[in-house]
Amino acid sequence: MANTEENKLATSSPSGVKALFFDVFGTLVDWRTGVARDAELILKPLGYSINWIAFAEAWRDQYQPGIEEVRAGRISYTRLDVLHRQMLQKILPQFALNKLKDKELDQLTMAWHHLDAWKDVPAGLARLRQRFLIAPVSNGNIAIMSDLARRNDFRWDAILGADLARDYKPKTAVYLAAVDAFDLKPTECMMCAAHSEDLRSAAANGLRTAFIARPEEHPGVSENAPKYPVDVLSNSTLDLATQLGA
Amino acid sequence: MANTEENKLATSSPSGVKALFFDVFGTLVDWRTGVARDAELILKPLGYSINWIAFAEAWRDQYQPGIEEVRAGRISYTRLDVLHRQMLQKILPQFALNKLKDKELDQLTMAWHHLDAWKDVPAGLARLRQRFLIAPVSNGNIAIMSDLARRNDFRWDAILGADLARDYKPKTAVYLAAVDAFDLKPTECMMCAAHSEDLRSAAANGLRTAFIARPEEHPGVSENAPKYPVDVLSNSTLDLATQLGA
Repeated sequence: MANTEENKLATSSPSGVKALFFDVFGTLVDWRTGVARDAELILKPLGYSINWIAFAEAWRDQYQPGIEEVRAGRISYTRLDVLHRQMLQKILPQFALNKLKDKELDQLTMAWHHLDAWKDVPAGLARLRQRFLIAPVSNGNIAIMSDLARRNDFRWDAILGADLARDYKPKTAVYLAAVDAFDLKPTECMMCAAHSEDLRSAAANGLRTAFIARPEEHPGVSENAPKYPVDVLSNSTLDLATQLGA
Repeated sequence: MANTEENKLATSSPSGVKALFFDVFGTLVDWRTGVARDAELILKPLGYSINWIAFAEAWRDQYQPGIEEVRAGRISYTRLDVLHRQMLQKILPQFALNKLKDKELDQLTMAWHHLDAWKDVPAGLARLRQRFLIAPVSNGNIAIMSDLARRNDFRWDAILGADLARDYKPKTAVYLAAVDAFDLKPTECMMCAAHSEDLRSAAANGLRTAFIARPEEHPGVSENAPKYPVDVLSNSTLDLATQLGA
């Protein structure tokens, strides 16, 4: 993260930040290898042999169109667990998985509750927690977030995000509901994510922003640098902690 | 808690419980001496000398009528921090505190963020957390809950309750929003509280119930035993942990 162009994007060293909000899928946890691993664990004993990573990527490719149904108001708020199940249904034909039963589809959907954190995250969040309120502001519903927290030893001050706002990022309501839950001003909150659109909307709503580069999230697709100016550029939660003096 | 009549109220040893929901004010933290202490800290240096405990009790007496405005639908959902401030305004005349400024009223309102847990609670919750998902299902808003958790070392899986449901206990929506957040059935959740009306509504909505006796909450007013049948009768969170095998 040391090249000149990237450093220019870090426009200020934010002061007055009291709470850090975290994107979770991709920024803190590795959905790609986690979903692939669970899919293999569940389906290989049933005789299936597919490209597990391609399966995880195809499932994730359904994510934006899936949540867009809620964001656009075409369906009422539906939690991500339910949408994940519907997204899964859509990719079954392309992997010749049409014969899977409800039980197996339910098991597969729980893969999103069993993801492992990038290796810096437990220690990085523990450091950041010494100085800031910390909360996920994720599109994942509370049950996913609490399971990921247990698994990875995240100690959140609260679980904010989609279930609280009953809408999905990058809609304004999600950021403002999170700011409001802690009774802070937007400028006292920093959104931390590996994705430019998330940070762009947070900034448009008055929040500070930190980019955390996760090139391994989805090789060839992940952003190596943010597309828009951010307050802090980092390559891990530990780097972020250091830059924020935590 | 060992007399015969009380034991008869404990109708079953619940199995299949996966999550414990906790009432907070009175059940886990001591609002009465905490608010009295902060009031004295803030007002004594300004020359006031009142009965600090009576002040805390008078403030709490405004609690049910205050939140009833929301429950009855006369005002839209308003978080408890805001209602606490309005309740405070109402009791100023009776303590000759009419000349207090906004700054002091704001400081006083924060007293509800600075309450100490009953001494069994940190260890009791830590034991219960080994076996169950644990979450506050309180009428206190998220900012109060996260401050109390920091202060008292509560490690919640999520903060559920009024802010999530946008209504107040004992309204059905609050219990069902909590059950739904963990994607459980009502019978897989147990409401734990020192107050019969809270437990009555939880039971009416299909949840299991545990009474935690807190005679010190409000001497002369606190319930020594539940008014309606409960699944577990206990006199502390440690006792509850033992009875639930945690």
